[in-house]
Amino acid sequence: MSGFEVLVAGGGMAGLTAGLFSARNGRKTGLLLGDEVAGGGHLISVGRIEDFPGFPEGVPGYDLCPMLQEQALNAGVECLPGSLEKITQSDGGWVASTGAGEIQASAVIVATGSEARRLDVPGADRLHGRGVSDCATCDGPLHRGKTVAVVGGGDSALLEVLELTNHVERVLLFHRGRELGGQHTYRTRVLEHPAIEVRAESVVEEVLGDEVVGAVRTRVAGGEVVEDAVAGVFVYIGLRPRTDFLRELLTLDDDGRVATDGGMRTGLPGLFAAGDIRADSASQAITAAGDGATAALAAHRYLDRGEDD
Amino acid sequence: MSGFEVLVAGGGMAGLTAGLFSARNGRKTGLLLGDEVAGGGHLISVGRIEDFPGFPEGVPGYDLCPMLQEQALNAGVECLPGSLEKITQSDGGWVASTGAGEIQASAVIVATGSEARRLDVPGADRLHGRGVSDCATCDGPLHRGKTVAVVGGGDSALLEVLELTNHVERVLLFHRGRELGGQHTYRTRVLEHPAIEVRAESVVEEVLGDEVVGAVRTRVAGGEVVEDAVAGVFVYIGLRPRTDFLRELLTLDDDGRVATDGGMRTGLPGLFAAGDIRADSASQAITAAGDGATAALAAHRYLDRGEDD
Repeated sequence: MSGFEVLVAGGGMAGLTAGLFSARNGRKTGLLLGDEVAGGGHLISVGRIEDFPGFPEGVPGYDLCPMLQEQALNAGVECLPGSLEKITQSDGGWVASTGAGEIQASAVIVATGSEARRLDVPGADRLHGRGVSDCATCDGPLHRGKTVAVVGGGDSALLEVLELTNHVERVLLFHRGRELGGQHTYRTRVLEHPAIEVRAESVVEEVLGDEVVGAVRTRVAGGEVVEDAVAGVFVYIGLRPRTDFLRELLTLDDDGRVATDGGMRTGLPGLFAAGDIRADSASQAITAAGDGATAALAAHRYLDRGEDD
Repeated sequence: MSGFEVLVAGGGMAGLTAGLFSARNGRKTGLLLGDEVAGGGHLISVGRIEDFPGFPEGVPGYDLCPMLQEQALNAGVECLPGSLEKITQSDGGWVASTGAGEIQASAVIVATGSEARRLDVPGADRLHGRGVSDCATCDGPLHRGKTVAVVGGGDSALLEVLELTNHVERVLLFHRGRELGGQHTYRTRVLEHPAIEVRAESVVEEVLGDEVVGAVRTRVAGGEVVEDAVAGVFVYIGLRPRTDFLRELLTLDDDGRVATDGGMRTGLPGLFAAGDIRADSASQAITAAGDGATAALAAHRYLDRGEDD
């Protein structure tokens, strides 16, 4: 069983930044990348992050994340395959069970992030990977010259709608509310874009198609049902924190998120949480990174003092 | 009297990031840069920030800060001269008094950061700007080929000692403790550097010199007094948060810092705090930036709902 002073679970912004700061503080630090080969979490597929400090022209997630992973590796972080499946207290420390075996650690920083919520309507699961997608940069280019649908009305949906306009002919944006959510900057750009048609107060009821997506059926405010021919359906209806393995240890909030104090401490000795899984998280790349650094410094002090200071 | 939805006080990492996110959320946002002409806070004079995510080769503070300021300006932030001298509640909002007049704002994010503590020994004040300095990148080049002293033992001192080795012949590092503090990465580099002599358990008692610094007098562990000829004395003995103007409004901790919740709310409606002035702050560039984004989103929601949600 391999052992570390600090084990970070998660290879997104929070996890990589936690690893970077932990290693720079001289702690023997392991980092579980999760099921992905490379770190980065969600952001790895974002075409342009505009609000990460230090990049006035914006930076693609597939650049930012590998750069941060390189920083963490240079600092001495050991990247490990596998996801955190279970953690248990043992001898004043923790034992983490992963698909690739058990790992002992004196402190654990959980930064497992979140996954896209699936659309729970007929056809959506059956056609997932056959036109139903949650990655515009990955699958947008497959639909060149065609019309696609996006479902959702927050920042993620708006960002991905804008990304899709680089690839497809026309985007229909279906959202439940009267007004779009998300950042004003993105909202304005979406509303003014000639290739985007915003369909407010529209609830997707079914994704249609035999082998691949062919159309989407929605119910609009008055109850009328509308069918639109589309080649793809991109779904951004929120995120579900990956915290199931914490349920036996901690009380989670209604959304499955973890409460922490300002030092990212969970209340259990040597167990810290950072990024999207935190109840207080503002769910931005920069706030996840800040969380990671704060958690790493708190874990470092915890190991120094042998207590949850 | 000019007016804003959100007024950010402070042009460091926390303030600039708060401004960026506030403007991107469509809020009319003013930003008080403080007494400096350009934003950036402390970091503006740091030669290489190694732990800011996204910069594997490190980034000079005098690059990172202007890039972030450009981002904030592009997003629509209005930068204003002057420092926050006083804030008072008025008509459900706030009135900020600055050297350049009064500003009305519905919400205020205080990110005034901290200033270097001065060395409180004979000669230090008199010779400030005449060899006594708190900026290695600014004043290091003045002492090419000479020996200088650094006072302090934390991250800032270590970073600046390493910066000084690019300019001067030899650096004497005086610190009170037995062991250096700060990041392991920096500590190792300082201890192994041939041009750096670390003087543990040494308390500086006087800075000597007529027109300019000529020597420094220290008392070592056994009580013995030592005098070293040095051309400069660089002081990094900690930071003092700039929060004096908050004393009438809020209870500050013993260090003068402000308590907030996870959304950077101070407890007073529409008043938020971010960065070094927060009691929970981990005092890193990346955590200050994260704080700023979190505060801006909390202020945005506060203005939406008309209450401290």
